[in-house]
Amino acid sequence: MSRRILFLCSIFIVVMSAFALRWPLTVVPVHAAAANDKSYSPSYTRNGDLVPPLEYRKWIYLTSGLDMSYLPSNTPDMSMFDNVFANREAYDSFLANGKWPDKTVLVLEARSASVKGSINKNGHFQSGGVMGIEVHVKDEKRFPGGWAFFDVASETKATLIPLKAPCYSCHQDHGAVDTTFVQFYPTLLPIAENKATLSKSYLKESPAAGK
Amino acid sequence: MSRRILFLCSIFIVVMSAFALRWPLTVVPVHAAAANDKSYSPSYTRNGDLVPPLEYRKWIYLTSGLDMSYLPSNTPDMSMFDNVFANREAYDSFLANGKWPDKTVLVLEARSASVKGSINKNGHFQSGGVMGIEVHVKDEKRFPGGWAFFDVASETKATLIPLKAPCYSCHQDHGAVDTTFVQFYPTLLPIAENKATLSKSYLKESPAAGK
Repeated sequence: MSRRILFLCSIFIVVMSAFALRWPLTVVPVHAAAANDKSYSPSYTRNGDLVPPLEYRKWIYLTSGLDMSYLPSNTPDMSMFDNVFANREAYDSFLANGKWPDKTVLVLEARSASVKGSINKNGHFQSGGVMGIEVHVKDEKRFPGGWAFFDVASETKATLIPLKAPCYSCHQDHGAVDTTFVQFYPTLLPIAENKATLSKSYLKESPAAGK
Repeated sequence: MSRRILFLCSIFIVVMSAFALRWPLTVVPVHAAAANDKSYSPSYTRNGDLVPPLEYRKWIYLTSGLDMSYLPSNTPDMSMFDNVFANREAYDSFLANGKWPDKTVLVLEARSASVKGSINKNGHFQSGGVMGIEVHVKDEKRFPGGWAFFDVASETKATLIPLKAPCYSCHQDHGAVDTTFVQFYPTLLPIAENKATLSKSYLKESPAAGK
């Protein structure tokens, strides 16, 4: 298991674990000054790792959460924001069709949350570096089920999360669209409702959705 | 005073007020399906309103906060996230120089925060539509001091916030770079430190900054 954040049910749900105190991730793409705005498509190394998409901070922002958890009780050791980004081609396609095209890449970035700092006295703001990054890739010919998760270990290495890990079944069972948590992406959920692309499992779980 | 959110000290600090219960904003650019990726520059109507930058969700994401306030005690009537975006040209220039170019536009978008929903049980996620939008524009020839705030009232109207409003003096006194709250933008603060563009007032307020 990674020494860093455990995204048990991400690309969206950040579960604080006993590993939290071993952070932070020290080598991460804090920003991508050298990145350009060219189109993106996932690429892999010979051993099956994903080449980390370091330019994701120039992609389309989908949403943020703070200390999200699907556990009934949760007392995180530290507070964290999670920010989600999509590659631009995938976002444009979703706006048009309400579903993700092949080669969609979603990036979840975790950052520490602070309360006191500068003139802020209450609430939370994002502070410091990246605490963890996970990538959700749609590559239909490459992965059984079409999607795979990768854990970004460094600026040059993102390893496949085993296909039997609970994140896969959780996304399969609860993702609003095509195993992704569109229910937490406020600009995309209305599109999916309008295009009638919400999953059967999500509609069963959230009877008011799509009506 | 606007019937909607009062950003007393934004582009970043959301202050919940007695007006909170009068929300939400009903006509807002939830997303910009028709927007393209062309370069952006602020434009105005004949009476001095700003033409709202409806494509801001395709811009560069800077950060999010939850219920941020600079008041010692704050018990908001409802929880809200604020998301901040910059136009791409301004972001690229900041990465290169550590400061904002003329025609920089920063957008603060407020969205309601929920705890229970779908499989989420704890923490907060962004839900529903936009609750308010404020725009911070750098236009050196147009505004005394170089910057102005606009309150987005609808998809076609963004009115100037009077130059004597407290947001101006607060940003002037506490903004880390050029009257903007770069201290809360985790990808940009290291750039400003490296380029030595932090304001004197901020360095005085945060002695550890830039060292």
